Amino acid sequence: MKVKDIGEFGLIKRITKRAKDKGVVVGIGDDAAVLKLGGKYFVVTTDTLVENDHFSMKWFTAEQVGMKAIEINASDVGSMGAKPKYALVSLVLKKDTSVSFVDGLYKGMWMACKKYGIEIVGGNITHGREIVVDIDMIGEVARENLKLRSTAKAGDFILVSGDLGKSTAGLKLFLNKVRGHSKVKKAHVEPKAKFHKVKGFLKYINSMIDVSDGLASEVTRICEQSNVGALIFRDNVPLADDTKHAAHVLKEDALDYALFGGEDFEVVYTVSEKNLSRVKGFLVGQITKKKGVRIYSRGKEKKLTKHGYDHFKK
Amino acid sequence: MKVKDIGEFGLIKRITKRAKDKGVVVGIGDDAAVLKLGGKYFVVTTDTLVENDHFSMKWFTAEQVGMKAIEINASDVGSMGAKPKYALVSLVLKKDTSVSFVDGLYKGMWMACKKYGIEIVGGNITHGREIVVDIDMIGEVARENLKLRSTAKAGDFILVSGDLGKSTAGLKLFLNKVRGHSKVKKAHVEPKAKFHKVKGFLKYINSMIDVSDGLASEVTRICEQSNVGALIFRDNVPLADDTKHAAHVLKEDALDYALFGGEDFEVVYTVSEKNLSRVKGFLVGQITKKKGVRIYSRGKEKKLTKHGYDHFKK
Repeated sequence: MKVKDIGEFGLIKRITKRAKDKGVVVGIGDDAAVLKLGGKYFVVTTDTLVENDHFSMKWFTAEQVGMKAIEINASDVGSMGAKPKYALVSLVLKKDTSVSFVDGLYKGMWMACKKYGIEIVGGNITHGREIVVDIDMIGEVARENLKLRSTAKAGDFILVSGDLGKSTAGLKLFLNKVRGHSKVKKAHVEPKAKFHKVKGFLKYINSMIDVSDGLASEVTRICEQSNVGALIFRDNVPLADDTKHAAHVLKEDALDYALFGGEDFEVVYTVSEKNLSRVKGFLVGQITKKKGVRIYSRGKEKKLTKHGYDHFKK
Repeated sequence: MKVKDIGEFGLIKRITKRAKDKGVVVGIGDDAAVLKLGGKYFVVTTDTLVENDHFSMKWFTAEQVGMKAIEINASDVGSMGAKPKYALVSLVLKKDTSVSFVDGLYKGMWMACKKYGIEIVGGNITHGREIVVDIDMIGEVARENLKLRSTAKAGDFILVSGDLGKSTAGLKLFLNKVRGHSKVKKAHVEPKAKFHKVKGFLKYINSMIDVSDGLASEVTRICEQSNVGALIFRDNVPLADDTKHAAHVLKEDALDYALFGGEDFEVVYTVSEKNLSRVKGFLVGQITKKKGVRIYSRGKEKKLTKHGYDHFKK
């Protein structure tokens, strides 16, 4: 659930900000909404895959589409500190979609659900001109584990749970029909949520988001919602050797993939200085009182102007 | 959420039947799934509108699309005996979709939500080649009010909450470019959930479903899931005069619209003989031990072979 996209439309914001029900703990704008149901806290989210926009059947198998659909939603739920529990599956299929495609799709979803202990409790199938896989996921969270985007504090350090840019490198390899690089390509067609990496030290995290649209974009979201700014340490952004190698072959900068690419599904989180020794992860920046997101590299600071997936696509 | 469609794919059934989580009270197959969350009962459902399949911009305004998206989901939630509470909105928009369309869509959704006291708590917007509006809705239900499709009993009478076929008549008028008939056309572009009609006597209802795909189709679903059969009294099916008039102009049978059309969003419910005097509605049939759904008219009984929306479309 991306506030960036939703923010494009003023009315949506006006309407959804009206949420006044006592059960609505966090409304639109975070990775997931938070509801208090029957005295417990639940997060609900929805994310959609559209054929040729979020996956191409040229390089995805049906199973991989199914797995990705679950992983991206599990990542949204998990990056709130919650445990994914239930999923609803809405499919738009084409008139000529084969049963074997649907079987593969569900097999992929089931495999991913099994990993997390998620139950598919319902769904809907209808017809259209392109395949759309929309997943709604409900997770449960203890109040003290709930992590938001809006609670970063000036001075917090910004950490990321793992190396970035590999999924984007994989996509670029597919688009440019480069052979080999199977590990990098796999990161694109079989993305995995990574929120389990921060489970052990959730209580020390002040704010959190998953990386679906590139580090620059996610840090910007945290800053906008927390009413702070940030400095990203460009040279600290973790890159895997095979991502760098793929970028080299593609004559591009792997750091651009990490900053402006997407779908790594690592988590970005902020931690106060005093708790820094209690957490793991790669330190990639710091939250500042000064608004705006800037990038620091070798003594120079640049304002972030272009960010996120759109930039990358260009 | 339609079990008929989902049933087409064997694997889906096999996978979704695995739902074993203690919180899953009713899994896939009813109007909505039922979850026990924090000691209370909630129903969750999802339903999707695809441009040109579920609405045509030739005769729908953006607001009407928004209203319809909420009404059809509210109907699914309400026909379980639940109160709709929260909605998530997933949109697939085309690259050239105007902001005014999205404004209209949300205005329509908001108006319908306001009516029911539903809060839009989240959502997602992405791009594709056709407009898809997918709504996920969560409702709350007291255990004793929970109404399922699978609990009809042989001997129960089948009732419907109001006249049927008007939305289909409206669609046919649009398709055949017939002028006038504004009330009938409105029933198509502004369908309303009708579950409030049975609120006063929920406790006397043994099983319930909403009419999204025609009476024949809905009775068949109740029978399949309750492991019973039914006899539909064809001549008792309530039709409005303006529906009959439209059908007459179109040289078709209004009863076909009622039986095999759809989107009336009245509710169909079954009630034991002893409770019949305690409920309102139109008596349109009876549940039988003998399997299969048959239609009775003027001394003749016919087996139902073709049913539902697909038949009507032909």
